[in-house]
Amino acid sequence: MQKIRMGMVGGGQGAFIGAVHRMAANLDGQIELVCGAFSSTAERSKQSGRALFLDDSRCYSSYQEMFEVESKLPADKRMQLVAIVTPNHLHFPVAKMAIEHGFHVMSDKPATFTLEEALALEEILNAHDVLYGLTHTYTGYPMVKEAKALINAGKIGKVRKIVVEYPQGWLAEAPDQSNKQAIWRLDPKQAGISCCMGDIGVHAANLAEYVSSLEIIELCADLVATVENRELDDDGTVLLKFNNGARGVLMASQISVGEENNLKIRVYGETGGLEWSQQEPNSLILKDLHEPNQILRAGIGQQSELATANMRTPAGHPEGYLEAFANIYRNFAQQIRAFEEKQTPDEIAQDVPGIKEAVRGMAFIENVVAASQSNEKWHTFSIAPTNK
Amino acid sequence: MQKIRMGMVGGGQGAFIGAVHRMAANLDGQIELVCGAFSSTAERSKQSGRALFLDDSRCYSSYQEMFEVESKLPADKRMQLVAIVTPNHLHFPVAKMAIEHGFHVMSDKPATFTLEEALALEEILNAHDVLYGLTHTYTGYPMVKEAKALINAGKIGKVRKIVVEYPQGWLAEAPDQSNKQAIWRLDPKQAGISCCMGDIGVHAANLAEYVSSLEIIELCADLVATVENRELDDDGTVLLKFNNGARGVLMASQISVGEENNLKIRVYGETGGLEWSQQEPNSLILKDLHEPNQILRAGIGQQSELATANMRTPAGHPEGYLEAFANIYRNFAQQIRAFEEKQTPDEIAQDVPGIKEAVRGMAFIENVVAASQSNEKWHTFSIAPTNK
Amino acid sequence: MQKIRMGMVGGGQGAFIGAVHRMAANLDGQIELVCGAFSSTAERSKQSGRALFLDDSRCYSSYQEMFEVESKLPADKRMQLVAIVTPNHLHFPVAKMAIEHGFHVMSDKPATFTLEEALALEEILNAHDVLYGLTHTYTGYPMVKEAKALINAGKIGKVRKIVVEYPQGWLAEAPDQSNKQAIWRLDPKQAGISCCMGDIGVHAANLAEYVSSLEIIELCADLVATVENRELDDDGTVLLKFNNGARGVLMASQISVGEENNLKIRVYGETGGLEWSQQEPNSLILKDLHEPNQILRAGIGQQSELATANMRTPAGHPEGYLEAFANIYRNFAQQIRAFEEKQTPDEIAQDVPGIKEAVRGMAFIENVVAASQSNEKWHTFSIAPTNK
Amino acid sequence: MQKIRMGMVGGGQGAFIGAVHRMAANLDGQIELVCGAFSSTAERSKQSGRALFLDDSRCYSSYQEMFEVESKLPADKRMQLVAIVTPNHLHFPVAKMAIEHGFHVMSDKPATFTLEEALALEEILNAHDVLYGLTHTYTGYPMVKEAKALINAGKIGKVRKIVVEYPQGWLAEAPDQSNKQAIWRLDPKQAGISCCMGDIGVHAANLAEYVSSLEIIELCADLVATVENRELDDDGTVLLKFNNGARGVLMASQISVGEENNLKIRVYGETGGLEWSQQEPNSLILKDLHEPNQILRAGIGQQSELATANMRTPAGHPEGYLEAFANIYRNFAQQIRAFEEKQTPDEIAQDVPGIKEAVRGMAFIENVVAASQSNEKWHTFSIAPTNK
Repeated sequence: MQKIRMGMVGGGQGAFIGAVHRMAANLDGQIELVCGAFSSTAERSKQSGRALFLDDSRCYSSYQEMFEVESKLPADKRMQLVAIVTPNHLHFPVAKMAIEHGFHVMSDKPATFTLEEALALEEILNAHDVLYGLTHTYTGYPMVKEAKALINAGKIGKVRKIVVEYPQGWLAEAPDQSNKQAIWRLDPKQAGISCCMGDIGVHAANLAEYVSSLEIIELCADLVATVENRELDDDGTVLLKFNNGARGVLMASQISVGEENNLKIRVYGETGGLEWSQQEPNSLILKDLHEPNQILRAGIGQQSELATANMRTPAGHPEGYLEAFANIYRNFAQQIRAFEEKQTPDEIAQDVPGIKEAVRGMAFIENVVAASQSNEKWHTFSIAPTNK
Repeated sequence: MQKIRMGMVGGGQGAFIGAVHRMAANLDGQIELVCGAFSSTAERSKQSGRALFLDDSRCYSSYQEMFEVESKLPADKRMQLVAIVTPNHLHFPVAKMAIEHGFHVMSDKPATFTLEEALALEEILNAHDVLYGLTHTYTGYPMVKEAKALINAGKIGKVRKIVVEYPQGWLAEAPDQSNKQAIWRLDPKQAGISCCMGDIGVHAANLAEYVSSLEIIELCADLVATVENRELDDDGTVLLKFNNGARGVLMASQISVGEENNLKIRVYGETGGLEWSQQEPNSLILKDLHEPNQILRAGIGQQSELATANMRTPAGHPEGYLEAFANIYRNFAQQIRAFEEKQTPDEIAQDVPGIKEAVRGMAFIENVVAASQSNEKWHTFSIAPTNK
Repeated sequence: MQKIRMGMVGGGQGAFIGAVHRMAANLDGQIELVCGAFSSTAERSKQSGRALFLDDSRCYSSYQEMFEVESKLPADKRMQLVAIVTPNHLHFPVAKMAIEHGFHVMSDKPATFTLEEALALEEILNAHDVLYGLTHTYTGYPMVKEAKALINAGKIGKVRKIVVEYPQGWLAEAPDQSNKQAIWRLDPKQAGISCCMGDIGVHAANLAEYVSSLEIIELCADLVATVENRELDDDGTVLLKFNNGARGVLMASQISVGEENNLKIRVYGETGGLEWSQQEPNSLILKDLHEPNQILRAGIGQQSELATANMRTPAGHPEGYLEAFANIYRNFAQQIRAFEEKQTPDEIAQDVPGIKEAVRGMAFIENVVAASQSNEKWHTFSIAPTNK
Repeated sequence: MQKIRMGMVGGGQGAFIGAVHRMAANLDGQIELVCGAFSSTAERSKQSGRALFLDDSRCYSSYQEMFEVESKLPADKRMQLVAIVTPNHLHFPVAKMAIEHGFHVMSDKPATFTLEEALALEEILNAHDVLYGLTHTYTGYPMVKEAKALINAGKIGKVRKIVVEYPQGWLAEAPDQSNKQAIWRLDPKQAGISCCMGDIGVHAANLAEYVSSLEIIELCADLVATVENRELDDDGTVLLKFNNGARGVLMASQISVGEENNLKIRVYGETGGLEWSQQEPNSLILKDLHEPNQILRAGIGQQSELATANMRTPAGHPEGYLEAFANIYRNFAQQIRAFEEKQTPDEIAQDVPGIKEAVRGMAFIENVVAASQSNEKWHTFSIAPTNK
């Protein structure tokens, strides 16, 4: 048996998210980086590759070249999986070509630039026999999975209300031109129709649906561009209705001064409640109608298989963001192994965000922008592209 | 000099909030309970009064009798101030008669049953030379006052966003008939047009306006009656616009299982942020664009006069709900003393919720209900009664 | 029925702890301040009394005068109870004279200046039919009482280990001469043989014995005078052995920069653990061998009578230091009523620190100083005075 | 340039700490596992190796065989570094043979079985030109490094007091025979002369010395075997004196029911204080004499190079135990690269626990046991072996 061989598009020296993908893929020793199209020039791609201990021959100057060349390598040598860590507008064309050349895809989020592309991607995947994963990292945390398992097991009764919030403060000022992370997110040409909702609101929506196993069906939104001269939203609040009748509130903000990456979810059911916060991810508070609240901690007491299979250390040895990210890679690697052995992946391996989440995520972004522009209170969540 | 002499309407044995008012009035030794119309029968009123060490002659069978009799007692003996702790629908007639008999009033909230009554009360007060206070308790906390003072001093820059939430869980189930606190709040005849917003949402709105020194001008609301067979809301979320352009979110809930009385406010400005939570009231988190967050603690470092004048113990000796309540009474007692000496009360004595807050609170309740019933997204906050 | 009539020795204008005693006595409306010897001159005593709305005739220039005069007043008018809030070296003579004149005593801690005095006080009390209370405030908190009740009920099994810590930072620097609270505590003539252990270590020892219902039998101590030119300890750690074989650690410090009044206790038994912190007094963490930890909150779920009888507000309405202090006064007032009616006080009324705690507290101070001076590791806790 | 090639002794299937070492070595992609002597039989070693994608030819049946064979492989293929993750009693002989064959060593802690062995290891290292690292994991956390840097920069003034505690609860009961982790730690033949101090107390001592840059010079200890029939300590408290005159308290416990791995350190200086807790490792509380406490957070504001070089993710993306562990491996890998290039490693690369910490750790264990057995209060910390 060999490690899964992975290539990467994007992620050259200085890029942040590419390094995160590589660490996540490295952690469990199941995946080996074998090639990459790290930059748009041959030389810079090679430079990046050397720092990753790759041979120059596997460092390509374009993703097109990489897919062409790698697909002709011997089966036991060629890349099996490609990680896409480019700017957003390239996610779709890279994924499309990868799929058409028979490579499995792990894409950074958001899946595509528009909902229309996401739907097209879904069609392409339906027509090809490859696997697709999407790094909605936050659902990779064990205690998020425990929350989902508890709700599925009826621990808090029928869900009535979900409050999900994602405040950050890093865009509270106009950014320097040197701050590339900020500049592209605020540029409609690179980021699409939303900054705040596209970048982090979509994570919050995904988290709410994942944990509750519910779907958003209506929304009412107020998105604002708080800082002067911004074309895109940097803050927004969304009222939600879910398909079981539950209500919800989604808050996302990039102008909440002093907040880091404070994603937090609270779910209230008929008989209990759950609260989880990304900045203290190893705890999950379980609330009760009449009894004291409990602090569920990763690794303490009886916990679901879904959660425990995604823990690496004993209780009290905190796991963090990279471990959550690595869970997505490890579970996807298991999916690939099952695929290659023509077996059905187990529940744990299947628990990876995929094309369904890609489509719903892009639909969320387009629906929330449309809802914000409307004078009517409620907007029906639709997965038909609004820009057609 | 003598203690301020106080009477009470309502608050007989077994009633909760009357006892709270008495403890709050007692704490600083500035006020003396001298009489009461504690219950609707003479005997039960006397029984309650005896347990409070009152003479039978000062325990009345009705508030009408009390105001009549007390107003004819010698000036150095008669009640100066009446605390109104009856069910809501009596707040207005009791306050009206008290004012007309020349007694100062401290009313439990909400001030009246309808906005129309609140506006009528305002007119009555304008025509009489007495003082009126309203127990919006939460603004009595020192660190809430510190937050207000910091914002007024420009510490966080122009306010951009306010998130205020008030989750409770005690109405998550249909209550027993023995639970009188729950039964009347859910009954439109006793509670008015709203349960959740009328009981706690109004506190949250008051806190947001107090801390920020801003006013709500538009709102978008989604109120729900979550538990079966309820006529009134037990949960709701409101999007807010403030008069300086800031946005806000107000969440109030009585069905958030496992939450006690978790009022919390976050205010974000251009250069800083503030966060305060009622269940840990002696801390105030100050957030900064670039520097580490600070935990401001009651009594530590240089703090505003507004805050320090409302502290009783050194740092690390926690003060709580009753002390916040007592601040309202103590400051109001100072107002009365200034009034009697025909002096202008100082800033601290003036810092008591009054008729303006009474009117805005009732207006909030009526506006939020109207907004929730509307299909349009935004509803203009109006202080003209909506039910006229 | 009348309020209990209380006099006060000490506590003139500007004194801190006298005001705390008065607020604590006021809160529940069971006790009325009727007289005082607030200062050592007649005029200043009267001035202080007037601010408390007392008649000049009840403001005395000395405690001797007060006891003489008050004991001759009619039974329904004279003081029944005296609160002693003088500097430490006067606690004993004032208490002695009060007892000999038939007045009940509520003394600030430490009970006396020396263990010898405490033992003498015990003898005097044995010879007179009056009640004695001591304000070890921290055992007045409801969740401390809940911890005691849970341990007594076997909830955590046999106690094995107690960690009690009391860090403060206010003496980390040499104090200004204007800081009277600091100056006298650091002066052996006024404070006795210990600063840190006498002021706060004794509270920690009392808390450990109260919560566990155990007694310290051996100790090993390291007391230090950290800041230059200090004669008395400002920091110390003590290893403890309890009478059931449990071990303990007691840390007290006045030089722990940035700490306010951070008294905290953890008790570990065979099957569970408990953790309580004075700065968040409404929570008590219950720990379990195999199950998630629970956050017990004042007013939530089934709690002991000992705890609930000492709560005044519903869950989520925080109570603090003054309420804990007031519990001591209220329970002592009930003791006095039972005494006057020649009845046995109930468990709640009896739950007030008294002469036993006075003696053990003074013994703790003397033993811990002796232990620190010894070169042997273990020192046997003895209640024979060490300075005889 | 190639990855550093690592072998492993111990860590076969089912072993916990071996997997942790591998994940830590994997994370940054700087190190490649190339061989191992995972188990004491050839077949089980091969089985473990296959699961790690190793060729059978590099899976050895003994460490002796591994060192012999690997040392004869070509320079660009053979192992450069060996990770020792065996039971404690093998640490010394494996490290000794590795060093003598020219391999760099990364050893799990404690370094050896006795202080005598640690001193012997030091001599061997002095005679050979190889590098030695020791996985005192907790000093790998960025905010621990920030604390050290702040203290070195004088931010809290001269250190006066250190409180370090390490409570766990997992040995509060007699373990099942199936609990191998517990069984060997409680067995003097496998664990040495101490269970609790050898396993976790030594981490606490190391953390205190690392953060403060001070050394323990005297100690007073009370170690106990709490649970029946135990030969070794499962709980203990140690009073400390440091070489600058500062006092300290070290508490370690394995019978503190409900505690996970709650290592926590507080350091108080003349003008400030620091507090860090392993279970929330991304925060560091900075305390001040007069100003509000600050919560320093990984990645926020200006921080030391020592800290920031050991962070991988932006603020609000929590890092945990494995990242701290990985810092040790990454920094050691940089040391090896500098060594091979005959350069001086930079400050970051040098910041890895090594033979000095190995010797002091073993000395701590022997001194603390000796101190506990003594009837004298203070025991001088000595690095001469006590069992000679």
